[in-house]
Amino acid sequence: MCNIISIKDLKRIAIVGVGLLGGSVGLTLRAAGSGCMRIGIGRRRSSLERARRFDAVDQTTLSFARGLRDVELVVLATPLGRFEAMFAAMAPHLSPGCVVTDVGSAKVVPVRLAERLLPKEVSFVGAHPMAGSEKTGVEFSRADLFAGAPCVVTPTGRTKPTATRLVERFWRDLGCRVARMGPREHDQLVARISHVTHLAAACVFLAGAKSGGLDLAGTGLMDTTRIASGDPGLWRDIFEFNRQPLVSAVDELIKLLQQAKQALAKGDQARLVALLSDAKRRRDVWIARRLLDQPT
Amino acid sequence: MCNIISIKDLKRIAIVGVGLLGGSVGLTLRAAGSGCMRIGIGRRRSSLERARRFDAVDQTTLSFARGLRDVELVVLATPLGRFEAMFAAMAPHLSPGCVVTDVGSAKVVPVRLAERLLPKEVSFVGAHPMAGSEKTGVEFSRADLFAGAPCVVTPTGRTKPTATRLVERFWRDLGCRVARMGPREHDQLVARISHVTHLAAACVFLAGAKSGGLDLAGTGLMDTTRIASGDPGLWRDIFEFNRQPLVSAVDELIKLLQQAKQALAKGDQARLVALLSDAKRRRDVWIARRLLDQPT
Repeated sequence: MCNIISIKDLKRIAIVGVGLLGGSVGLTLRAAGSGCMRIGIGRRRSSLERARRFDAVDQTTLSFARGLRDVELVVLATPLGRFEAMFAAMAPHLSPGCVVTDVGSAKVVPVRLAERLLPKEVSFVGAHPMAGSEKTGVEFSRADLFAGAPCVVTPTGRTKPTATRLVERFWRDLGCRVARMGPREHDQLVARISHVTHLAAACVFLAGAKSGGLDLAGTGLMDTTRIASGDPGLWRDIFEFNRQPLVSAVDELIKLLQQAKQALAKGDQARLVALLSDAKRRRDVWIARRLLDQPT
Repeated sequence: MCNIISIKDLKRIAIVGVGLLGGSVGLTLRAAGSGCMRIGIGRRRSSLERARRFDAVDQTTLSFARGLRDVELVVLATPLGRFEAMFAAMAPHLSPGCVVTDVGSAKVVPVRLAERLLPKEVSFVGAHPMAGSEKTGVEFSRADLFAGAPCVVTPTGRTKPTATRLVERFWRDLGCRVARMGPREHDQLVARISHVTHLAAACVFLAGAKSGGLDLAGTGLMDTTRIASGDPGLWRDIFEFNRQPLVSAVDELIKLLQQAKQALAKGDQARLVALLSDAKRRRDVWIARRLLDQPT
């Protein structure tokens, strides 16, 4: 394992759960020039079959024993709610020295589960590529899903540095901009830049829907609520795995809305303009920086 | 005026304020086959000059006296905060029988101003095409901005039916799906499907920005907050013109967020899934209907 320095050196990889993200890992590996054997492991023969037809994986199996044989790297890409069962199921079949990473949107609980359930000779390095879609299923996988996307990698004090380096290199080779931080720091951050965003999009849409006038809404409502079409089961898991940070983030958002409402009710235009200008200015800077970061 | 049944019959139109929306009216008129003379009226010679170079208008002037001569239809497309001054300035120069419409995102105040300030021989029919962008300026005008976009037309008991029909026909000819309702009903509706959406996008972005981790945010935050890059001055005017309905809409949104937060804090997964599923299901139906409505 320690000899692997790029995805081109990988010989066998297992992708557990070949949906939008797992499928995109498979497609991107191939597109980026890795000749590794990509094993898809899943629960349903039909969806594995679709993943193979989509060329997201080379071989598929329902069996961890068969699928994990001689595998150097495992990417766990199921919904978070399945992580505990998946770690337990894969544990007996992982080769010593094998490295496991994942794509879960929360990190404290997955890292804890992995450190409890996986054998000592195996390294787990949590990862969260900030890429996705409101769509689910391997049909929506793309070989450019990760291009330019941030990916947070969350080693702990118990993680072998070589495993961390391998996983960071892996996500970078798939096109991500990799950042490293602790699981707790990650969870608090994504509660505020992603999880509360999802909850807000759902609530904004429901508030609009209650008006009975959706047919008259413009593209603003459409874009603002796009992510509210995401899979409710996936998001229930994410919310459950990141409950306390998300509660705090919702509180913060409610506080901002209440401040805006007070300014509005009092006719305090200066304060409203300050709020809107602050948001616009910071967002414009952010977007401009993002465009510079995009791969050409 | 009563002989005008389509934009092809229009001979002279004035567009007051040739920015994103006014410019798109001009471009769309030409693209839709109207040969009318398009007069651009504005405050700054430089922006009028840009509008003419952009072919959004044929002639430009800083003078209402000159610009409104023999004009059959006026489209007021300045920010709402300028409406009172604009109505007062145009009033002495409108020909009897002339019809005035607008693009303002609130309707109660504009309709009241128009009925107070415009001469009796002139008809005002308020309109709100639900089209736009976070961008401003004639450079972002498009001949397809209105294609398939909803447009609410808000006649009152004092509006001549022929004027209402003309204005409805006008917006329909530009590509809009036209709906008719009263100014008050309009304002309450758009507070809930558009104005609160804008405020929420700004607050969601500011909450994310406070985390200090924007560089790690994905496309979810980007899309959810796109409209927060809109012009703060335009939105201050909209909020001011639609203050009370917006305050109620913000209250409604805060209530939904509080309910979600309670479900989250209690670990009430069934309620969270119900909320997320409700939003997803209704939004998917809405998007599917929208796609069917799109012009091909």
